[in-house]
Amino acid sequence: MFEFELLATEGLARAGRLVLPSGVVETPAFMPVGTHGTVRGLHPEEVRRAGAQIILGNTYHLHLRPGEEVVQALGGLHGFTTWPGPMLTDSGGFQVFSLEGLRRVAEGGVEFVSHIDGSARTLTPESAIEIQWALGADVAMAFDHVVPGQAPRELAEEGMERTLRWLARCRSRHAELAERSADGRTSGRADDSPHAVRPSAGPPVRQTLWPILQGGIHPELRARSLEGTLERGPWSGIAIGGLSVGEPKPVMQRVLENLAPGLPPALPRYLMGVGFPDDLLEGIARGVDLFDCVAATRNGRHGSAWTSAGKVNIRGAGLRLSDEPLDPACDCETCTRFSRAYLRHLFLAEEMLGLRLVSIHNIRFLIRLGEQARAAILAGTFDRWSRDWLERYHHRGDA
Amino acid sequence: MFEFELLATEGLARAGRLVLPSGVVETPAFMPVGTHGTVRGLHPEEVRRAGAQIILGNTYHLHLRPGEEVVQALGGLHGFTTWPGPMLTDSGGFQVFSLEGLRRVAEGGVEFVSHIDGSARTLTPESAIEIQWALGADVAMAFDHVVPGQAPRELAEEGMERTLRWLARCRSRHAELAERSADGRTSGRADDSPHAVRPSAGPPVRQTLWPILQGGIHPELRARSLEGTLERGPWSGIAIGGLSVGEPKPVMQRVLENLAPGLPPALPRYLMGVGFPDDLLEGIARGVDLFDCVAATRNGRHGSAWTSAGKVNIRGAGLRLSDEPLDPACDCETCTRFSRAYLRHLFLAEEMLGLRLVSIHNIRFLIRLGEQARAAILAGTFDRWSRDWLERYHHRGDA
Repeated sequence: MFEFELLATEGLARAGRLVLPSGVVETPAFMPVGTHGTVRGLHPEEVRRAGAQIILGNTYHLHLRPGEEVVQALGGLHGFTTWPGPMLTDSGGFQVFSLEGLRRVAEGGVEFVSHIDGSARTLTPESAIEIQWALGADVAMAFDHVVPGQAPRELAEEGMERTLRWLARCRSRHAELAERSADGRTSGRADDSPHAVRPSAGPPVRQTLWPILQGGIHPELRARSLEGTLERGPWSGIAIGGLSVGEPKPVMQRVLENLAPGLPPALPRYLMGVGFPDDLLEGIARGVDLFDCVAATRNGRHGSAWTSAGKVNIRGAGLRLSDEPLDPACDCETCTRFSRAYLRHLFLAEEMLGLRLVSIHNIRFLIRLGEQARAAILAGTFDRWSRDWLERYHHRGDA
Repeated sequence: MFEFELLATEGLARAGRLVLPSGVVETPAFMPVGTHGTVRGLHPEEVRRAGAQIILGNTYHLHLRPGEEVVQALGGLHGFTTWPGPMLTDSGGFQVFSLEGLRRVAEGGVEFVSHIDGSARTLTPESAIEIQWALGADVAMAFDHVVPGQAPRELAEEGMERTLRWLARCRSRHAELAERSADGRTSGRADDSPHAVRPSAGPPVRQTLWPILQGGIHPELRARSLEGTLERGPWSGIAIGGLSVGEPKPVMQRVLENLAPGLPPALPRYLMGVGFPDDLLEGIARGVDLFDCVAATRNGRHGSAWTSAGKVNIRGAGLRLSDEPLDPACDCETCTRFSRAYLRHLFLAEEMLGLRLVSIHNIRFLIRLGEQARAAILAGTFDRWSRDWLERYHHRGDA
C-alpha cells in the first residue's frame, strides 16, 4: 500500500505507478480538484470517463461546510461523494494563508475568520490532520505555512522553518490516529487505560501523509526544506508547495530543476496548484509526477478552452455556425458529440450545460496530456515530443 | 408517420402509441422542456436515461437566440442539440402573449420587444410556422392567441376566434412548406414558374402541425374552439392551451371533462404547460395523452423535489446526516447513487451538480408517473391506482 514503482525515466522525466488503498494512479497524472467534494459542475462518472485516476478534496472548505463529521458519518469522502477511486485532501494551509487580513498566524496554528459565516476558527497542524483523517482520503497533506510567491527571503525562511516544525507535529498526530485505527479503535479519543479491551488488529490504515516543501524561490531555503523534510521521514510521497503563486514561470522551473537531484527517486512528487498545459509538460520534464489545478474547470466555466489548435473562446462570433467539434483532435465526451455552434449557444443563453461541457473538455485535455507524456517517457521519446508540443503551443500566441 | 394507435382505454383514460419521424412515444407521457435547445442543466443522455421519449423546444427563445437559421444550418434541432428522438416545438404564442406591456396584438400577428436586446420583433402565424419548419421538430404547434387564465369572456372569445383564424393561416403556410419539401425543394421561397424544373418526390415530410384549442374556462367557447378547429383539419394531434394559467385546478379539470367527449379518439391530446404530479394523473383520468411543464427542472434547481413520501426541500436541516436516497422508491440516477446529505451539501455549497441531480430526479418522477399510469390503463387498474396515489399525495399535506 502507498507504494510507488518507477517504471521508466527519460532525463528527469519519470513514468510510474502509485498504488493507493482505493486504486492505482499511473503517473505522470493531472488530478482534477473537487473543492467541495465535487469537481465543479461535473458528475463523478463524467470525471471518471474523462480519465481521472485521482481527485482532490479541500480540507478548508469541507471543514467549514458540511463539516468533517458529516463527511465521516456518510462514509468519508469516498462514501459521501460516491467517487470510488483514489483521493487526496490538501491541508487547508493554502486557503487559510490566502485569507489576508482575516487570519492570525502563531506557532500553535492559524486563527481565521470563516468566509461563509464570519465565525472565528482555528486550524493547527493537529486539527488539519484530524479533519483529513475524518475525511478519509487516501493521501493527506501536512499543514504548511504558505508565503506569497514574491515574499522576501526572511518571510520565506520563516514559513519554511515553521512548515518543518509543523510537519513533525502533523506526522506525530497522523501516526497516533493510524496506530489507534490499527488497534481497531476508530475513535480519535485517547484511551490509555491498561484495562481497556484491545481487539486484535483492526482494518489496515487507508491513509498516508505527505509533506510539503516550502522555501519560495530561494535555492538554499528549498534545499534546507528538503533536508529537514527527509529527516522527519520516512514518507510515501512528497509535495512541492509555494510555487505557481505569482512568480515567473522560468523561476518556478529553476526551483524544480534545483530540487530534482535531491528528491528520493522512490517517492512520487506532487507539484501543488499547477497548472496550465505548458506547466504540466515543463514540470514533467523536471521530474514531477502529479499535478492539480482549478484552471481546467474555472476556465471551462468561463468558456475558455484549451485545444490542439490553441485557446478557444467559446463565445467567439466565428463559432456561430461551426459544426466542428471544440477540438477536432480531442476524444472527450464534449468533442465527440457537440458542435462549437451549440456550445457557443449554450454559453450565450447562460445554460449550465455549456459550463459543464467545456469543463469536461479542459479536464480531459490535461489528463490526456499526462497520458501522452507517460507513453512518450515509456517509449523514450518524451524530450522530442514535449519540445514539439510546447513549440506548437507557444507558437499559437493565443495560448 | 404521425400515426396514433389507441391501445386501451379505461373510462376517459387512454394508453396509446404515437409514431413520429424520429421515434415512438408511448402515452400517456410527460415531455421535458428544453427551452433553449437543452433541458435546463441536463445532458441529452441524462434526459434519455430518465426515460424521456420526446422533448420540447421553444420557438420564441430559439428564434431570438441563436436564431432558427443557425439551428437549421446545424441540422435542425436534432442535429444542433444531438437529441436523436422525437421533438416538439411550441409556437411562441404563450411567450409573446406573456410579454405584457412589451407587445402589440393585431390581426396580422404580434409585435413585441425582445427580452434579450430590446429589439423590435414580429411573430405572425406564418413566421411562427416558418421558424418551426427551420427548427425541424417532429411536431410544430399552431400560433395561438393566449389570454390570461382569469380573462373576461369577451377577451377569451376574441383570443379563441383569432386562434381559429390564425390556425387556417398556419395550416396553409405549413402545407406550402411541406409541399415544397416533398417536391425536393428545400428553399422556403415561392417558385411558381411553369418552367421550373421539378425534381421527383423529395424526402418524406418530417413535421406535422397540431392545432391548439383556446376558450378559457368557458364551456361554450371551448366547444366552439373544438368545432372550428376540427373544421380546419384533418389533424394528426390536438393540443389544449390556455389552461394551468392561474385558474383553480377543479376548473381546469372541468374544462377537460367537458372537452373529452368531443375530441376525436384517434388523435393524441396534448395538455400544454401541465404540470405537477397530481395534474398529470387528473389529466390522464380525463383523456390527456401528453404533458409538458418546466416545474420539474425549475423546482429541481430550487432544491424542491417530489418524492413518494411528499415534497422534500433539499436544504432542510433534517437531511444533514441522512444517508437515505432522496426518494427510496425512485429508480433515477440520483436516487440510486447519492445520499440526501450529499445533495443538501451541494445545494448549500451552491454546486451546480446539486441542481442537476434534483432536476434529474424530478423529471424521472413525472416520466415514471406516465409509465405507471400507462401500465395501469393497460391492466385496467388505472382508476383505483390513481385514486390511491392521489389520496396519498394529498394526504401528505406538504405536497
